[in-house]
This record gives sequence, structure tokens and C-alpha cells, in this order.
Amino acid sequence: MKNSLLILTLICMVAGVRAAFGRRAPQFPKQSHHIDSLYSYKTYWYPQTLDHFNFISSDRQFAQRYLINDDHYTAGGPVFFYTGNEGDIAWFCNNTGFMWDIAEEFNAMLIFAEHRYYGESLPFGKDSYKDALHLGYLTSEQALADYATLIDHIKKTIPGTMKSPFVAFGGSYGGMLAAWFRMKYPGSVQGAIAASAPILAFPDMNDCELFYRITTNDFKKGGGSDVCPNMIRKTWNTILDIGNTEVGRIQLGKMFKLCKPLVGFNDVYMLNNYLSEVWVNLAMVDYPYPASFLENLPAHPIKEVCKHLTNEAATGVTLIASLVDAVNVYFNYTGESKCLNIYRQATGNLGDQGWDFQACTEMAMPLCQDGVQDMWLPYKYDFEAFATGCKQQWGVTTRKYWAQSEYGGFNISAASNIVFSNGGLDPWYGYGVLKSDNPSIVPVFIEDGAHHLDLRTSNPLDPQTVINARNTHKDNIRKWIDQYHKANQIW
Amino acid sequence: MKNSLLILTLICMVAGVRAAFGRRAPQFPKQSHHIDSLYSYKTYWYPQTLDHFNFISSDRQFAQRYLINDDHYTAGGPVFFYTGNEGDIAWFCNNTGFMWDIAEEFNAMLIFAEHRYYGESLPFGKDSYKDALHLGYLTSEQALADYATLIDHIKKTIPGTMKSPFVAFGGSYGGMLAAWFRMKYPGSVQGAIAASAPILAFPDMNDCELFYRITTNDFKKGGGSDVCPNMIRKTWNTILDIGNTEVGRIQLGKMFKLCKPLVGFNDVYMLNNYLSEVWVNLAMVDYPYPASFLENLPAHPIKEVCKHLTNEAATGVTLIASLVDAVNVYFNYTGESKCLNIYRQATGNLGDQGWDFQACTEMAMPLCQDGVQDMWLPYKYDFEAFATGCKQQWGVTTRKYWAQSEYGGFNISAASNIVFSNGGLDPWYGYGVLKSDNPSIVPVFIEDGAHHLDLRTSNPLDPQTVINARNTHKDNIRKWIDQYHKANQIW
Repeated sequence: MKNSLLILTLICMVAGVRAAFGRRAPQFPKQSHHIDSLYSYKTYWYPQTLDHFNFISSDRQFAQRYLINDDHYTAGGPVFFYTGNEGDIAWFCNNTGFMWDIAEEFNAMLIFAEHRYYGESLPFGKDSYKDALHLGYLTSEQALADYATLIDHIKKTIPGTMKSPFVAFGGSYGGMLAAWFRMKYPGSVQGAIAASAPILAFPDMNDCELFYRITTNDFKKGGGSDVCPNMIRKTWNTILDIGNTEVGRIQLGKMFKLCKPLVGFNDVYMLNNYLSEVWVNLAMVDYPYPASFLENLPAHPIKEVCKHLTNEAATGVTLIASLVDAVNVYFNYTGESKCLNIYRQATGNLGDQGWDFQACTEMAMPLCQDGVQDMWLPYKYDFEAFATGCKQQWGVTTRKYWAQSEYGGFNISAASNIVFSNGGLDPWYGYGVLKSDNPSIVPVFIEDGAHHLDLRTSNPLDPQTVINARNTHKDNIRKWIDQYHKANQIW
Repeated sequence: MKNSLLILTLICMVAGVRAAFGRRAPQFPKQSHHIDSLYSYKTYWYPQTLDHFNFISSDRQFAQRYLINDDHYTAGGPVFFYTGNEGDIAWFCNNTGFMWDIAEEFNAMLIFAEHRYYGESLPFGKDSYKDALHLGYLTSEQALADYATLIDHIKKTIPGTMKSPFVAFGGSYGGMLAAWFRMKYPGSVQGAIAASAPILAFPDMNDCELFYRITTNDFKKGGGSDVCPNMIRKTWNTILDIGNTEVGRIQLGKMFKLCKPLVGFNDVYMLNNYLSEVWVNLAMVDYPYPASFLENLPAHPIKEVCKHLTNEAATGVTLIASLVDAVNVYFNYTGESKCLNIYRQATGNLGDQGWDFQACTEMAMPLCQDGVQDMWLPYKYDFEAFATGCKQQWGVTTRKYWAQSEYGGFNISAASNIVFSNGGLDPWYGYGVLKSDNPSIVPVFIEDGAHHLDLRTSNPLDPQTVINARNTHKDNIRKWIDQYHKANQIW
């Protein structure tokens, strides 16, 4: 399996609208007022510096989008600042209900800043993804500098904010950014809520197998035994076996109701790839209530999936028939889909190109499978092969250890005021910060939480662990705000 | 007066050999062993990434020079890492005797890393200074990233250093870099000795007049009264008056023994400029013993200068005659100079071009004169005019507030393990960190110290205040090393 696709799962849960990539970024349009189906905010654009760290083309700017809600803000109150990740910021805005839920209680302003090269913040408009010459400014360091300069701009232009403590929020890659933002720009934000942020996922830092092992455990839990993952483990070779003949491929196409027939063996391989993404995505969004974060899904979707995978003795087409029923929970829960398109990413909200470039440059995170502790076929991580693919695709050289040099790797104990929350169901939690010897770096573990469940709006079906986590977040935010106001203004 | 020249005084005391700019950077030559007149070290070259923060030209590298002495190193002992500033690293190596003095006591390795675009670390060889396209990668952020990746390289290649705590050292701009390095890369260095680091000198942060007021006070102290600075204050207009005629210009040329005659009024203006630099440089190197840091100078050079400026009633050529005697202390203390070249920077060690570019891009530090509290003519700081000049000279846009966005401005209290030392005679101390509400950010004030006197090798004539400061440095370094070894290895 092509590992970059697997790595891409990081975005699956956080990605933006793919269509946006084709849209031209507005040239500093006037602010607009937008009332979304969920939340109300105003949209602004900031003339952002393209390259903060060089002066080769020092004048070049682009329009960075950010969203503001100040319904509950009082001057000097906190500003909750979402460090946008790899997708349309409006989507994150609508899926980070926790910030909206607590705004009134804190008299807080909400700001959602879009990450460069995603959504509508495209430095070169429709040419932004043309080649490395255009795309090369897409790095996490540039994004963090965008946030720092944007905050300074906000402080200078929005009355009352000069004396406001800013607090960073983010989930997934956005959580990594929130944490790094506090580490690198502690003068900009007083603290950070970094949800499901796998900052320890870089090469040679951790066991590359954790991700798939955790996912597999979710299916054990969901099905109540080893049966469900054991059956899934059998499907890979069963599909490859059946798909080995033309007759078999036609049969698979019919069973899965594929939009396009499986023409050759490569298409069979793509079917497995698609299924792999489905399992991973299910693990990330295994929420305790119906949600439409990636797809429309029932509560506890893995449990629903595993209800179809109970006959461990099943083989061949019998096994595949069960598999099809299981996959339909993900693919066609509402019953509206007419056929399954395996060439579309397993979620329609995927902003894949940008993250693929980031993974190919500075965000390479090794994942692997042993086929024993996980329900996949064995797959060894091969950095050299990965880098070769990146070179071919983008013309860039992957910097294997750069992220660790830049962000400190495990050596983060000099940082302060960061909450690292992780969910026990989330495949990424194994690469999160789960322990700390520094009292102001606070790991929060949400036993029965999936991917940044804590950042979602509260729900009557929320488990107590996520309710507790959100209370811990609020306690920490209050502490940071107090610190900010108590700090001697010595200058 | 052109302010960029005044700002350039920052480098006067720290600059490298200008001739080096014309030399081609070696292409990763083999290491060489060098026994300098003062200290012995080995020279290494690291294939450094040109652009850490973009992937436009991600393969491009250059040879970064660094010097190592491991005479006293034992595996796991500390590594003292000098964050090179704007000049030839060998020169800093030889003028940072404090590191050499304490190496044995700490079993420390010494490393001096050259700053990109200075000395022999020229990314484009002799074309490095050609234009902004070549020079644009000269930024402090790139330099810090160079140091972080170099340290990771060292840890991987030099046995024993993987478990060594690294401590940053730097003076002047190098001190700013040392402090910022600890702030931005606390995983790379356990602490920083930042000597005479004016990190609070950026626009709108402080009174732009402090620099010249402090310099003027040095001349008050040196001469024992207001007489010396009062006489200097009179010289500016006296020179302009005399230089207003051809006869006067010839007379001035003879009195100062100028190498080239003063042809027009602009040359008279340049004479004043030269003198201005002399006074500033004298204030920076007003050391209590004879030294040849910038020029060969006697002990307490300002005192020597002011011995010639005692007749407050003097005017016209009488005043200028005294002035010439005074200036000779700086220019011709050894009696070897045949004529005075005012078109040469006031120190022969100046690496002016690079710093001029840095001041024009991200390091703009406003200085001004009121002519009352200082001994200069009134000069208002005009950012717009400054930026226009920069645009004309380099084709770049000066980013007025960027350094504050990037490094936090006054909001540095989240940092830790930094000693900020400043000398009461140093014109820059007004822009240094002199107070702190954080016990691990330690301001050290050296009442009778000039520009980073504490980093120089010990001398029998050292005042007690600098001896105390060095002991404080050592206490802090010991504390940081203990912290490093006591830290729970929780991963």
C-alpha cells in the first residue's frame, strides 16, 4: 500500500473542501458577514507576508482569511484563536463547537485563522498547487508566523484586544500548530489547547505500528472480541485472491456496487486501499452520537460495522458479503448513495494535495503494519522509498529530521501552558503527549474519546471522560488568563 | 547623518574581516587544524540547508563553518556553543576568552558556529552579496535554524555529545541570537548567556535617544565633568563652519592628517560621521586595560580622550586642535598610522554590508539624538526615510514590526534559563533586558563594564563587577547543567 495515502488519514478528519483548491483567492475583498447553518461569524482578509523568513521577494503578499465572532466579547476579555489546519477554515469553525460553547462564559472573542494554501487562502490563486515553485511556501513555520503577525494586526485594529490574552486552540494538525505556536510564540498566546496533536509521530521517535494497532483495538472493543478485526484481516487477501481473475473482479464490482468496474489488478489494490481508509476513518470518528464529521454516521459506528462481522469462519464471497454490509455503514448509512467510488478519498471533505506536499516535505510521519497486532497485511515503513516518491511527485527533498530540529522532538519540557488532550479510541493518540514532568504541560487522556472529541460541541451522549476533559480545559484557560492579568507589567 | 551608519555601530564591535566577503566559500572542504595566535581549534564545514522554511529550492546547501576545541571535554560534559554573529567566526572565537577560561572547569567542549553570509560561510561564494536575490536568505531566523540543525548534526557525529547539555553564548547581535535561540529552540540548548544583547531596541519599544545619552554619560564620567561632552557637542558645527569654505576644508585636512583632501561639503559631513562613530566605538570598548578589540587602545580610552578636551572655552581651530589630539587616541594610539582615512569604517574589522542588509530588512533599530541630553546635533529618527533608503539600496521592504512579532517584543517572560548581562558603560545597555519577573531570566548589570566585557578573557585589571558577573554566569550554567541531568528521562 502506498504509505502516503495512509498518512493522509491525518487529514481525513480535518480536511477542507477540495473544490476550494480550484477557486481563486480574492484579492483583499472587503469583509463579509456570514451566517452559517451552525454559527454566525464575519469574514476578514489580511494582507499576509508570503515569505516571513527571507527577503528574496519581500513585497509579495496574499489574502489570508479569518473569521470572527465577537457576540460575547468584552474589551480585555480573552480571544480564543483557532490555528487553522489543512482545510477550509469555515469547516473547522463549524466543527469546533467547544469554542462556541464556552465563549459566553469567558466573554471571549472567537477567531478562526485559515492556514495558508487551504480553503480560500491561496497565495497564488488557482496556480497555488501548480508546482513546488508555487507550493514551496506551504510550511508549518510560515503558517505559525502568519498567525503571529495576524494577532499583532488584530491587536492593533480591534479595540480592546491589545489587553486581551490570546489562547490557541487546535485539533489534529491544528493541535500540533496550537502547541507549537505556544512553544515558538509564547508572547502571542498565553496558552494552547492542543487536541489530538501527534507531535511525537516523526521518524525514529515512536513505534510506527502504534497507529494501526490502536485502530485494531477499536474494532476489538467495538465488536466485543477479536472476531471483527480477525475477519477484516482476512479480507485483504480474500479480495486479492478473488480479484486475481476477470470473473472475480466483476463479482467484486457487483457486490460493492462500484461506480466503475475493476479493470485490472491495480484496481483491486485500490479497493483494498479504500477499505483501509474506511477503517482508519471510522476509528477517528467513533463518536458516541450520530455525526456527519466525515460522512453521515450512526452513534458508535464501529460497533455498527462490527455487527456485520461476526462469523469468523466465513471465507471467500461469504466473507466479502459481510464486508460489504459492514462498509455500507460508512459509505451508505443514509441509503442515498447509488454506487461506491473508490477513487474518491474515503471522505468528501479531503484537502489532500496540500497535506500530501507537507508530508512529503517536513511532516513525514512513519506508519507501518505488522499484520499480527493489527488487522492489516504486513507493511514496513521505508523512508527512502517514500522520499523517492515525493521527489518524483513534487520535485522536493523530504527533510527527515527537520521537524524534530525545529520543534524540539521529545525535548519540550521548557514549554508551558499547553494542554495536550488525546482520546483512547483515536489512532493518533500513541503519538501524542501522554506524560509530562512539567506541571504546566498538561496531558489529558479521554479514555473513550475518538479524534479530538473534546473540541466538538457538547452532546447529551458525551461520555463523562470528555465532559471532564472539557472542564480541565476550562480550568487551565482560566489559570492562564489569571496569570496574564496578574503578571507584573514590568516594562 | 545617515542613520544606517549609526546603527552600524552595532557591528563595529563584533564585525568580521571585510576581505572575507570576496573569498569564495569552500565546497565542503575537509576539516583543518588551526592553531591561532590565541587559541587552538579545529575547523569543520557542515552542508547546511539554504532555506529551512520553504521548499522552493529545497536541495540547495552551503558550507557552514564551525570551530571546535575539545581539549577539556569528557563525554556527556557540556558543550558551550557560540551563536556566531555578523563577522568572521575566528574573530569571535579569539575575542570570547570567557568560554576558553572556563572550559577546563566544566570539562566543556567549545564550538563556535559561523553566521551565514559572514566570514567564510557564504552561501553563493563571491556572489553572496550581489543582490537581494542572493542575499535574501540572510535572516536571523535562518541563522537560528542553522544552529539547531548543526547541533543535531554534532550530536549524531561526535561521540558523547548526544548526552551533553548545550549552552549558548553570544555577545551583541550574537547575544540576541543566543537569547532567541534559547527562546525558540529550548530543546537545542539548556540555557543561554546573552551578553550586551539589545533585544528591546526595535521600533516603538524604547526611547530612541538612550543610545547617545549613555554614550554621552560615558564621556562625562571619563572626563570627570560635563566639559568633555560639551566640547564634543561644539565640534560638529565648528567643523561644518570651517568646512564651509575651500580654505577651511584644506585646513581641516591638514589638522586631521587626512589621507584624501575634503573636496566638497559632503566630505565635511563624512568627517563628522567618522567622528561620531569614533565616540560610539570608544564607549563600547571603554575597557579597563589596553585592548585591540576594534583598534589598539589604551586602558580606559575615554579617559585618555577626554584628557585632551578640558578647555571648555576653546572655539574654532583651537577647539579642533584639541579634537585632533583626542581622536588620535583612537585612530593612532600606536603612532603607526600615516594618515586618517575617514571613508574606511572607524574599525578595520567591520563586516558592514551584511549587517546593513539585516538592518534594512528585519533588524531596524531606531536611534536618535536630541542634542541636549547627548553630545550630538539633534537628529530625529524617520522610519519612512530609512525604509526608502533601504528600498533604493537593496530593493527590499523593511519590516518594521516583524522582529517583535517573531521574538515577542517585551513578552518574553515565558522563556527560561537566559542570563542577560549588560554593562553600564555600553551605549546598548538601554535596550537590554535589565529587569525580569521570572526567576530564570536573569538580568546581570555590570556597572563599570563596556560592551560584553564579561565575555572577554579575565584580566588583572578587571573591575570586581565583571568578576562577579562571570561568577553569576558560571553559577547559572552549573544550575542549567544540573537541571539537564536531573530531568526525568520520561520518554
